[in-house]
Amino acid sequence: MSPPPACLNFRAIDVIRKKRDGSELSRSEIESLVNAYTRGDIPDYQVSAWLMAVVLRGMTRAETAALTDAMLRSGEQLDLSSLPAKKVDKHSTGGVGDKTSLVLAPLAAAAGVAVPMISGRGLGHTGGTLDKLEAIPGFNVNLSAGQFRSVLETCGCAMIGQTAEIAPADRKLYALRDVTGTVESPYLICASIMSKKLAEGIDALVLDVKTGSGAFMKHEKDAAFLAELMVETGERMGKKVVALITDMDQPLGNKIGNALEVIEAVEVLHGEGPQDLRELCLELAGWMLYLGEAADSVNAGKNRGQELIASGRALQKFRQMVELQGGEPGVVDHPDRLPRAPDLTTTASTKSGFVTSVQCERVGTACVILGGGRERKEDSVDPAVGIVLHKKVGDSVAAGEPLATIHYNHETRAARAKQLLEASYTISDSPPPERRPLIHGVIGNSGEKN
Amino acid sequence: MSPPPACLNFRAIDVIRKKRDGSELSRSEIESLVNAYTRGDIPDYQVSAWLMAVVLRGMTRAETAALTDAMLRSGEQLDLSSLPAKKVDKHSTGGVGDKTSLVLAPLAAAAGVAVPMISGRGLGHTGGTLDKLEAIPGFNVNLSAGQFRSVLETCGCAMIGQTAEIAPADRKLYALRDVTGTVESPYLICASIMSKKLAEGIDALVLDVKTGSGAFMKHEKDAAFLAELMVETGERMGKKVVALITDMDQPLGNKIGNALEVIEAVEVLHGEGPQDLRELCLELAGWMLYLGEAADSVNAGKNRGQELIASGRALQKFRQMVELQGGEPGVVDHPDRLPRAPDLTTTASTKSGFVTSVQCERVGTACVILGGGRERKEDSVDPAVGIVLHKKVGDSVAAGEPLATIHYNHETRAARAKQLLEASYTISDSPPPERRPLIHGVIGNSGEKN
Repeated sequence: MSPPPACLNFRAIDVIRKKRDGSELSRSEIESLVNAYTRGDIPDYQVSAWLMAVVLRGMTRAETAALTDAMLRSGEQLDLSSLPAKKVDKHSTGGVGDKTSLVLAPLAAAAGVAVPMISGRGLGHTGGTLDKLEAIPGFNVNLSAGQFRSVLETCGCAMIGQTAEIAPADRKLYALRDVTGTVESPYLICASIMSKKLAEGIDALVLDVKTGSGAFMKHEKDAAFLAELMVETGERMGKKVVALITDMDQPLGNKIGNALEVIEAVEVLHGEGPQDLRELCLELAGWMLYLGEAADSVNAGKNRGQELIASGRALQKFRQMVELQGGEPGVVDHPDRLPRAPDLTTTASTKSGFVTSVQCERVGTACVILGGGRERKEDSVDPAVGIVLHKKVGDSVAAGEPLATIHYNHETRAARAKQLLEASYTISDSPPPERRPLIHGVIGNSGEKN
Repeated sequence: MSPPPACLNFRAIDVIRKKRDGSELSRSEIESLVNAYTRGDIPDYQVSAWLMAVVLRGMTRAETAALTDAMLRSGEQLDLSSLPAKKVDKHSTGGVGDKTSLVLAPLAAAAGVAVPMISGRGLGHTGGTLDKLEAIPGFNVNLSAGQFRSVLETCGCAMIGQTAEIAPADRKLYALRDVTGTVESPYLICASIMSKKLAEGIDALVLDVKTGSGAFMKHEKDAAFLAELMVETGERMGKKVVALITDMDQPLGNKIGNALEVIEAVEVLHGEGPQDLRELCLELAGWMLYLGEAADSVNAGKNRGQELIASGRALQKFRQMVELQGGEPGVVDHPDRLPRAPDLTTTASTKSGFVTSVQCERVGTACVILGGGRERKEDSVDPAVGIVLHKKVGDSVAAGEPLATIHYNHETRAARAKQLLEASYTISDSPPPERRPLIHGVIGNSGEKN
C-alpha cells in the first residue's frame, strides 16, 4: 500500500490520535502542530479536538515545556541582554483587588532590578493591570518595542500590553480555547503564561498563584500543581522561577476599581495602605530582589523594599515611569486628578457581629456591573467607578455600620451592585475560627536564603 | 450580573464543558447541539472539542439513545407502514469478503419479510455492498424514495445507497470525526449506525458485529460492548434488535473483489459456495425471519432459509431485484457476463504445512492495491479485479501448491498485491491448536426460541 501522504493534515490527525490514546508527544510533533496552526495550515476543528484531548489526558513535564517553547518561538523574543541589570518580572494568575504590579515594578526598579512587564486586561470578575494604568490620564500602554526598551533603560521599569509580535500562537490558541471549553487545563495555562513571560527576555520570574474562592484555582492543591508546573517549565528553559501560593479568598486590599486601585497602590508606595496588600507587595518584592541579585536573601530583599518605600525612592520611580509613558505624574501627589465617579452610596450591615467571608467573585462582579470591568473582551471600562471595602474577614461590625462604599455613574447599576455587594458579606455572631494565611506556600528555588 | 446571552454558541460551550467534566447531558442538550450543528449554527471547532470529550468521557445509555434519536430526526424517515410485511434489515460492522447482504436481502424477501436495505461503500481494507452491487452491469443503487418503495413493494427487497435526506447530522458529524481522531468511540459508532438504520422505517434489525484481526473491533469484549450498546439503543427506540458477534480473523468466504463477491453470493443462493459463508448467511437469515415473524424460532428460520435456497426461490428473488433495479439479470445464470479481469496469477506456498492464519487487513489491502477498493472516499473502484483464496485457516498445503489467485488489470499492481498476499499467510508445521468459532455469541432478544 502506498505510504500515507506526507501532508500536514495527516500529521495533525496522528498527533490528535496519539494524545487521545494517552501517549507522550515528541518535541517535534508539538512544534509541528503549533507552527502549522499559527501559519493557518491546520484548521481550528483539528486543534480544538487536540486541545480537548490535552485537557482530559494531560501532558508530561517534557510535553509542557515543548509546548511552551514552541509557543514562545512562534513570535519575537525581546533581547534585553544589552541592559546590565538583571531582568525580573512578576506574574499573577488574577484576582480581585490585586494591584501589586503597580507597586512592584517601580519598587524593584528602585532597587536596581529591571522590570520589563507585559500585562493583560481584566475579564469577568478579575481586574487587569492595563486597565488600572489607563486610569492615569495620558498613560500609554501601547509602546513600540523601541519605546519600551527606552523607558526600561531610563527608569528600570516599563509596563505595556501584549504586542502582536509576542507569542502569536498563544493568542490564536487562547481564542480557540475560550470557545471550546479547553481553558481549564494546568498544562495549557502554564504554556500560555510562560510562553508570554519568557518572551520578555527575563532572567527570573516571580509567580503569584492565587488560591481561594476568588481565584481561578479554587483549591490549594490545584494552585500548587500549576505553580510546580510553571516553576519546572521555567527552570527547564534556563530561568530562575519561584511561585508563591497566595490567598484570594477575599479581595486583596480595600479598593476595587481602576482609579481606586491606582490610589491604593500609591498609598502602599507612600508606606501606607492596607496591611494585606503591603505585606504581599513586600513578600513578592523580596523574591524579585533576591532572584534579581539585588539582595542576598528574600528577607534582605524585603528590608530593602521597605527602605525604598520609606525613602520615597520607589514612589519617585513610579512617578518617573508614569511620566515616561505619557501619563500625568501629578496623580502621584494629587490623586484627585484621577477620574472620579460623581456619586457615592454605602451598603451597611443589617446586624452586629463579625465578618466571616467576603466573596471575591461577587465583589468583582459588582465592579463589572458598575462598568469597571468587562463581561466581554470588546467592552470598554469606566476608570472612575468601583468599590471601597470598609470591613474585611475577621473585622467586627455593628448593625448599621457601613460595609462598603460604591463609587458609581449610573443609579440602576449602583442598585444592582449594592445588592450583590450585600450578598457578598457573611456576618456571624463569632469571628471566623481560623485566619487564612496570606502566603500559603512557596514553590521552587529551594536553595534560597531567607 | 446580567444573565448570559441565550445565543446558541453559549449553550454549545456549556454542553462541551459539561461533557468534559464527565456529567450526563440531557436529551434536550444533545438535541440542541445536533440540530444547531446540522443547521450550521455552531462551528466545527466546537463540535470537534465535544466529540473528543465524548470519546474520552463516554456516554450513558440514555445519552447514546438521545444522540441516536436526534441524528435520526435530523432528516427524513421512511414510512413503510403501508407495507403489510414486517420490515427487517441486517447491518454488518464491516470486514473482508463479507457479501452476506447480497444473499440475505433476497432470501428474507423470499420468506415474506420486507428488506429495505440502505448500504455503504468500501473504504480502506473493507469492502462495501454498493460497490459489489454496481459490479452487476446496469444495477442502480441511486433510486429515488418512490422507486425504492416501488421495488420493495414488488419484490420484497431493495438495496440502495445513503440518500441526502436520511440522517444529514450523521453525514456532517462523520466527516468531522474522520479528520479529528474521533471515529473510535462505541457511543458515536452506535449512534451513527443506528440513526441511519432506524430511518429505514424497520421493525427489527439483525446486527453482525465483527471481531478479530480484520474487524474494526479487534477484541471480542469491544465488539460485545458495541453490540450491547446498539441492541439497547434500538430497544429503547421500540425496535426488535439482536446482535451476533461473528468472526473476522480471516476473510469470509473465498472470494474478495466486487464481481467475484457477487459470484460467490450467487453460489450461496444456488446452495453452493464456501461453508463459512453459507453458515453465516443461514444464521443471520434465521434471526431475520424470526424477528420478522416469518418463523417461530431462529432454527425454524434457518430451516426455512435452506428450503428457499433449495427450491431456487431465493435466487429467483435476487434475479427479480436485479432486474427491477436496472441490472442485467442474466448474470445470475451466466456469471461470465460480470466484469472480468484480463489476467490471472497465483501465489504459491513456499513450504508444506498448515495454514494457521490469513491476515484480513493484508488481503483487503491487496484488493485495494489491485484497484478493487478505495484508499480515499473519492477514488473509483475496478469491479473486475480481486482475489480468490484457495486455502484458509486449518487447511493443509504442500510446497508449491497455490494459496490464492489474483485477478488483475495492471502488472505492477499485481506484483505488489502478490507480495502482500504472500505476507498474509502463515504456514506452520502443525495445524492451529483450536478453531475460532464463526459465531462468538448472540446479544439481545433473550426471549427467542432456538
